Amino acid sequence: MASPGAETEKPGNHNDFVQLCNPHVAAMKEDVLYHFSLSTSTHDFPTMFGDVKFVCVGGSPSRMKAFIKYMAVELGLDHPGAEYPNICEGTDRYAMFKVGPVLSVSHGMGIPSIAIMLHELIKLLYHARCSDVTLIRIGTSGGIGLEPGSVVITRQAVDGCFKQEFEQIVLGKRVVRNTHLDDWLVQELVRCSADLGEFPTVVGNTMCTLDFYEAAVVCVTLLNRLEGDQISSPHEVLAEYQQRPQRLVGHFIKKCLAAA
Amino acid sequence: MASPGAETEKPGNHNDFVQLCNPHVAAMKEDVLYHFSLSTSTHDFPTMFGDVKFVCVGGSPSRMKAFIKYMAVELGLDHPGAEYPNICEGTDRYAMFKVGPVLSVSHGMGIPSIAIMLHELIKLLYHARCSDVTLIRIGTSGGIGLEPGSVVITRQAVDGCFKQEFEQIVLGKRVVRNTHLDDWLVQELVRCSADLGEFPTVVGNTMCTLDFYEAAVVCVTLLNRLEGDQISSPHEVLAEYQQRPQRLVGHFIKKCLAAA
Repeated sequence: MASPGAETEKPGNHNDFVQLCNPHVAAMKEDVLYHFSLSTSTHDFPTMFGDVKFVCVGGSPSRMKAFIKYMAVELGLDHPGAEYPNICEGTDRYAMFKVGPVLSVSHGMGIPSIAIMLHELIKLLYHARCSDVTLIRIGTSGGIGLEPGSVVITRQAVDGCFKQEFEQIVLGKRVVRNTHLDDWLVQELVRCSADLGEFPTVVGNTMCTLDFYEAAVVCVTLLNRLEGDQISSPHEVLAEYQQRPQRLVGHFIKKCLAAA
Repeated sequence: MASPGAETEKPGNHNDFVQLCNPHVAAMKEDVLYHFSLSTSTHDFPTMFGDVKFVCVGGSPSRMKAFIKYMAVELGLDHPGAEYPNICEGTDRYAMFKVGPVLSVSHGMGIPSIAIMLHELIKLLYHARCSDVTLIRIGTSGGIGLEPGSVVITRQAVDGCFKQEFEQIVLGKRVVRNTHLDDWLVQELVRCSADLGEFPTVVGNTMCTLDFYEAAVVCVTLLNRLEGDQISSPHEVLAEYQQRPQRLVGHFIKKCLAAA
């Protein structure tokens, strides 16, 4: 997903605040983010989230919790007995964890589930007055012609017909949105992968459909779809595969913070 | 959702086994239902699930767990110290619970998440050699022009353009499926609601879209969309609302079992 900054240049520290297209949100007395079980009237969003610079999202709650623990260690913010409570513990729709400038949020499976989460996430970042935020999905997917365990950095998302667009119905009308991702971010993630040198990484297109073939952004392929759809790798191997996008994105975040 | 039996008549006890359209599944040595963390090689599906006659699905794992406890009490199968473990505890994608002939499965939010679950559920019912299975979604939704707390029994699902169809892209081609639900089941649920006389129930159409406006089948409306999209009812009221479809479907299941 694109950072809200420039499309092809590095988004610098130019206080690029998260903006909303809907002008009515600013005038609301209370905004209930129902699926996060958070509300502007009961939670102090600027204090809780104002320092967020990186939002990483992925399907599985337990994987997103493992990611925040991993990031805490990587950023030197972990300590004995440290706990990373689920900020959305009032609901079982999504799970959310935070350490330092990193927010980790689960989104379930499929575009609608992701869309509901993003709708509330972007309002959360707006209410918290966050700036210069980079948003990355880390996840798993099937692959076409790739070895299982390959990490794919998505350049472009395509729909079930290989069209490079995302179609929505808004107020009964078809609205088509661009699916091209932030070029600078793609290239920087490629450089991070070269720095690490730990696993095969490719830049490719990712197909998002209305069923199990959805996948997006920085994903590890669990299987080569040209060889079937049964996942035959042992559990430990799959578990290591799932950590690969986390390691890549963790390296990217550390690099950004070191340069800041 | 329609039972796999007759479309307009009551599906009787005519050993209507769950069938698959894909002939290759029968020839597979092992079928891994990845998102349930179940496999035909490690789990005895006929023993575990062969007696299932009612499958109830809904978005939230905790609500589906509450439903199975409720059904255990209603069916006289509860006892002190009874536990209802999550059959899919090996994954955090979906949760599944069972008591007697009732299976309760969470499906997350949105059509893709539901589609992935149904894909594996129908294979599960097939491998378990289940027959005469009725499948009902119980959930929550927004409402248009209805009082919050109203229970809606869906006659027909419509898409974001009010078209009574469900469009899928299969192998790059547009495939349109019928969204009409089982008329007998709709009428029987209306009769159950009259028996109970506890809450307003209407038969209506439900719009399924790619974002928060999805809703389906036997849902309780949490809000009247004509008055905004903020959920303002207190938590206890919402909690009682969420139980209404469960009570209706519980009554239906008891009625079916008493008639069998």
